[in-house]
Amino acid sequence: MFDEFYASDAVREATGPVAWLQAMLDVEAGLARVGAATGRVPAEAAAAIVEHCRADRFDVTGLARRAVDSATPVVALVEDLRAAVPPAARPHVHAGATSQDVVDTAAMLVSRRSLAPVRDDLTAVADRLAGLADAHRHTVQIGRTLLRQAVPTTFGAVAAGWLVAVDEARARLDTVDSQRLAVQFGGPVRVPADPALPAALAADLGLAEPVLPWHTDRGRIGELAAALGGVAGALGKVAGDAVLLAQNEIGELSEGGGPAGRGGGSSAMPHKHNAAAAVLVVACAHRAPGLVATLLAAAPQELQRAAGRWQAEWGTLTDLLRVTSGAACHARRMLAGLQVDADRMRANLALSDESVWAREPGAVDALIDRALADHKRP
Amino acid sequence: MFDEFYASDAVREATGPVAWLQAMLDVEAGLARVGAATGRVPAEAAAAIVEHCRADRFDVTGLARRAVDSATPVVALVEDLRAAVPPAARPHVHAGATSQDVVDTAAMLVSRRSLAPVRDDLTAVADRLAGLADAHRHTVQIGRTLLRQAVPTTFGAVAAGWLVAVDEARARLDTVDSQRLAVQFGGPVRVPADPALPAALAADLGLAEPVLPWHTDRGRIGELAAALGGVAGALGKVAGDAVLLAQNEIGELSEGGGPAGRGGGSSAMPHKHNAAAAVLVVACAHRAPGLVATLLAAAPQELQRAAGRWQAEWGTLTDLLRVTSGAACHARRMLAGLQVDADRMRANLALSDESVWAREPGAVDALIDRALADHKRP
Amino acid sequence: MFDEFYASDAVREATGPVAWLQAMLDVEAGLARVGAATGRVPAEAAAAIVEHCRADRFDVTGLARRAVDSATPVVALVEDLRAAVPPAARPHVHAGATSQDVVDTAAMLVSRRSLAPVRDDLTAVADRLAGLADAHRHTVQIGRTLLRQAVPTTFGAVAAGWLVAVDEARARLDTVDSQRLAVQFGGPVRVPADPALPAALAADLGLAEPVLPWHTDRGRIGELAAALGGVAGALGKVAGDAVLLAQNEIGELSEGGGPAGRGGGSSAMPHKHNAAAAVLVVACAHRAPGLVATLLAAAPQELQRAAGRWQAEWGTLTDLLRVTSGAACHARRMLAGLQVDADRMRANLALSDESVWAREPGAVDALIDRALADHKRP
Amino acid sequence: MFDEFYASDAVREATGPVAWLQAMLDVEAGLARVGAATGRVPAEAAAAIVEHCRADRFDVTGLARRAVDSATPVVALVEDLRAAVPPAARPHVHAGATSQDVVDTAAMLVSRRSLAPVRDDLTAVADRLAGLADAHRHTVQIGRTLLRQAVPTTFGAVAAGWLVAVDEARARLDTVDSQRLAVQFGGPVRVPADPALPAALAADLGLAEPVLPWHTDRGRIGELAAALGGVAGALGKVAGDAVLLAQNEIGELSEGGGPAGRGGGSSAMPHKHNAAAAVLVVACAHRAPGLVATLLAAAPQELQRAAGRWQAEWGTLTDLLRVTSGAACHARRMLAGLQVDADRMRANLALSDESVWAREPGAVDALIDRALADHKRP
Repeated sequence: MFDEFYASDAVREATGPVAWLQAMLDVEAGLARVGAATGRVPAEAAAAIVEHCRADRFDVTGLARRAVDSATPVVALVEDLRAAVPPAARPHVHAGATSQDVVDTAAMLVSRRSLAPVRDDLTAVADRLAGLADAHRHTVQIGRTLLRQAVPTTFGAVAAGWLVAVDEARARLDTVDSQRLAVQFGGPVRVPADPALPAALAADLGLAEPVLPWHTDRGRIGELAAALGGVAGALGKVAGDAVLLAQNEIGELSEGGGPAGRGGGSSAMPHKHNAAAAVLVVACAHRAPGLVATLLAAAPQELQRAAGRWQAEWGTLTDLLRVTSGAACHARRMLAGLQVDADRMRANLALSDESVWAREPGAVDALIDRALADHKRP
Repeated sequence: MFDEFYASDAVREATGPVAWLQAMLDVEAGLARVGAATGRVPAEAAAAIVEHCRADRFDVTGLARRAVDSATPVVALVEDLRAAVPPAARPHVHAGATSQDVVDTAAMLVSRRSLAPVRDDLTAVADRLAGLADAHRHTVQIGRTLLRQAVPTTFGAVAAGWLVAVDEARARLDTVDSQRLAVQFGGPVRVPADPALPAALAADLGLAEPVLPWHTDRGRIGELAAALGGVAGALGKVAGDAVLLAQNEIGELSEGGGPAGRGGGSSAMPHKHNAAAAVLVVACAHRAPGLVATLLAAAPQELQRAAGRWQAEWGTLTDLLRVTSGAACHARRMLAGLQVDADRMRANLALSDESVWAREPGAVDALIDRALADHKRP
Repeated sequence: MFDEFYASDAVREATGPVAWLQAMLDVEAGLARVGAATGRVPAEAAAAIVEHCRADRFDVTGLARRAVDSATPVVALVEDLRAAVPPAARPHVHAGATSQDVVDTAAMLVSRRSLAPVRDDLTAVADRLAGLADAHRHTVQIGRTLLRQAVPTTFGAVAAGWLVAVDEARARLDTVDSQRLAVQFGGPVRVPADPALPAALAADLGLAEPVLPWHTDRGRIGELAAALGGVAGALGKVAGDAVLLAQNEIGELSEGGGPAGRGGGSSAMPHKHNAAAAVLVVACAHRAPGLVATLLAAAPQELQRAAGRWQAEWGTLTDLLRVTSGAACHARRMLAGLQVDADRMRANLALSDESVWAREPGAVDALIDRALADHKRP
Repeated sequence: MFDEFYASDAVREATGPVAWLQAMLDVEAGLARVGAATGRVPAEAAAAIVEHCRADRFDVTGLARRAVDSATPVVALVEDLRAAVPPAARPHVHAGATSQDVVDTAAMLVSRRSLAPVRDDLTAVADRLAGLADAHRHTVQIGRTLLRQAVPTTFGAVAAGWLVAVDEARARLDTVDSQRLAVQFGGPVRVPADPALPAALAADLGLAEPVLPWHTDRGRIGELAAALGGVAGALGKVAGDAVLLAQNEIGELSEGGGPAGRGGGSSAMPHKHNAAAAVLVVACAHRAPGLVATLLAAAPQELQRAAGRWQAEWGTLTDLLRVTSGAACHARRMLAGLQVDADRMRANLALSDESVWAREPGAVDALIDRALADHKRP
């Protein structure tokens, strides 16, 4: 019922059962290609394996059910893939790999594929914030500390603050995406038969090569989780502010109506106009920290493969990718329609003892220019 | 891909989109019936509304999508229900209620319906533990503190400890189920037009009647969450112990094979026998505390309806019901097949300086009898 | 620097090093008394032990330091207590107990002693809320949903909602206090030498008697944690609302000045009046859910004594008792000085399309009376 | 009682009340110096202010108590500092700054000063792990997945895995330390009077210069928290493994006795040898994720200064720095005395069907060499 609330369409699909299955099959295909390239797998067998690594040829529901017996989806997947390929190729399926190699590498692929639309949404969010910062450089607004009127600032300066926070959260996510999403390939106890294999698989799948196989070293999961949590937090702050500034008594911002019928009605009060998109951003952002904690708490994994904490990661990471994407897509939507009421901003100043903007315009310009310059850095 | 890992079949269904939709429709039907009984809704209109409150008559996917616009599924649901009933009944749909009345009451119904199978699984778990406690009263086993051999106990005493923990966690869940799952009916700002209506709706739906409408008083959600977290923790402890005692070097317990092909194989090492069910219990239990924290952190909800923290609850509660059910169903399965190796228990004693069970048998019998008596209390 | 922010004076002291030490000594004294009463310890030895169980006779700092070596404070404590008593009494110190018996029972005593002042503060909070509910039955105020003006309610109805939430959270805490704070006495592997000893120690110390020793069954810790988290959440909601209603643009509530110089100044803006007490309630409440999650996550403790998760509880429980007490004492202070501006409440109605209180006064009276009646129940 | 368990001595002191007070005074001194350098503060006044910015001249307990009235320690601090300096200097105290500038910058200084000893401990931990990896390259040990014997690896390879995890966690912490601990200087609503001031203060205090003042953009707090959580998780994994491998039935590792009397005794079983240091690492690591979540959840801070979530950070960050330092110092101690029993490692292989190390020694050498090379990178 609530899937639409907690994820963007793109990430709901990119983290769905079929996407996870395809990612695992992509790993199996990569293993076959790398095996062929290094002479460990006959080219014909590799080609047959690669050809069959398509999710639409598998029964994803049945696989999921069978996966319960071994607490991993890979045993059943390898069985089905072996059954699908010609007999000569069967011994070469999953060659040299262990279940965790496949699931962990698939988790990296699923994450990579989920981050792409998240990053698109963040780009749109940040560009819009940059536009607001620039356009409202001198739109005077009372600053509020502890929710009490303090001294004036400008809405452009406020938007510049949001911008930097989003840009920095996104930069961290970009770094994790490009540097920390690494292939897993160690075999049962994380000593690959051939030290060159992880690098080859990393190149094949477009993932980073780790120093070592990282079966029970979950630092990169924690870093990914924290980067997602950082994005959710930055967006939650913007949306929370938008909700506060949209209160009737303040009225400085509002969510635009957009298409007819949109814009946050109420079942009891049809005339009421709610900040519905902002509310969903806040809801998604609220869900992230607990998921991050669950992933961080899963880090102390036992010996060469964990008995439970690893298996707890899959659903948690899926959910965290989703709620972060939800925060991003709803924030994008919210900002696209955001209405700024400069008159109300000015009028609200009158409530304060400090009704005059006492800064040199140059100070706020310099500040906003710094934010915009930082935003434009490649 | 992982839905089967993190929920029982029954609770996955009881918390799915159709189940949530039906629960909301059950609330609308209840409102109509109560309206009719109190003379606020014509009997014919009420009958028409009740007749149409069937999930299979609605487009659940479309509803979910439209729900995004208002950050609540109720606006679209009421629209569709109004469109479905005869024109004369339309004004009586959703009479006197607000969106939160419907969603919160539906959440209580979804919880009630999910707790039933969880409690069944817990009954089976506890009965099995009681059987183990009784059967192994004098099966001597070394006690281990900080994972070092300490002094002997018996496996019956250990199982009795597990039993009491599960029984107490379940008792708490039962109390929450019967006393704290309360109807929500306050209208837009939680002053019902007729003070008798909440009691009538509670009776109609079989839920508790709250002192007041509880729109932004989320204590009962927190209590439900904590009770679920308590169950998950108690089960996680049993499963964690089972994993530890199944280590090859200890070998005192093992998961039985059950049906052919089951029993925790490995994609790289087909001969390996893993404690797959116990691992899934640990995984599910690991996910619970972060979800509980998310729900507790959602408690400070703003004024008469929260702008984000309430909307964060729905998916989180769904997930928490699921992972708790997963812990329970996997624990039941694990225990059903649990093999106890009394010879290994005795042999492992020899590693310790304290190889003799120094207690009177009467002491352990008294202790186990207490646990069994407590278990049998109605 | 921040200790005063995050705890009441009473609970800071009740959870401090000396208080923990005294609680452990109280357990040792109780063990000696119970030993004497059952003839297991000579009366003279018991009297000598009891006499020496006073924290001011021990070097608490030195004990804490030595505790690191064994990951428990009890080894060093028992050494020092043995050294302090006459030689004939030494073998009777700590008789039949294990470290965990002492620390867990002490944790229950520390909790019991901390809950008393928390409950006092909650009584004052609830009484004040009851007074506000009664006094402002018909003080019309606009209801706000999703932070947008909805339809009118009265401030009395709002306060009644706060009241019920606080009363219910406190009732849960009371139940945990009286029923779930249980003695721990099982000896090394939780089979007491004499089944009557736990009951005797429970009676001696005024704690509940558990069904079984509960060394690695941490349900009661989880229930205590959740009850504290529930209190923090209920208070956080009241304080959050007070902050929102104190915004300059709304101005319906404000924190009173109290003694000269108090009332939330600012280092940069001396004229500014902040809701300082409410802010500290929110801060304390914000810290609770993560601590609850940490305690719940500690539940799956290994075998007969955990290797880390138990030891993580002590500081976490201390912090959780503290932040809950901080929320309660700051809330009490905030409410004591709360100013209600009925004129602003009425004036703000004019912003809304629905400026008339459309309910019968009887409806809100009935609602408030229910809350007050529930509050007065013994 | 438990302070020694949950922090290193160095970090307990570096995060104590006096250290926080000194850090705030360091910020005030920096403001004065920067004011003098830019001609905004007379040199003599600046010198007087700097001279008085010493914690031992202030009543830290009294300050903490007075801080409650304004929900910030800075109001009282500035009062006392003003009272202490000559009258001519008084108007120049705290010039251009707001409370949050001082507290946030102080938090960065406290963090910086706490990270130094943590990093020292991590260096010692990593160097020791590198030594173990090198020394035990070919010490064959059974790999264990899901706590069941799988196929052989070597203890050197295991230690290399630990090493990489610790090195990477530390590298992330180093990056945060050098790049993300930034000065805060924006004045009341985060538009500094002179855009050059933040850079000057950053240079003066040795902190990074942010793009903008970051009052309610808490990304860097979240990154710091996550980096600390990552370190705790990596250490918790090593310690958890050490506990598992020290079980009597496995016996492959043990904590050395160290000085007489050390080494994890038991109050009930003096002969028992516990893995006390490892247990404390696990305990500290267990506490981190909940604290990280609390800090991440504090990110959505309202408008120009948060009403509660900011104030929740101070104690939480203090605790997180402490438990991470506790994990690091106990891990260092644990590893310093770690005993490796290569005979037991070999003997345990015999329990497995796969008793022969089937890899080429070259594979494990290559793997370990990669870890060591990565460790030695500057």
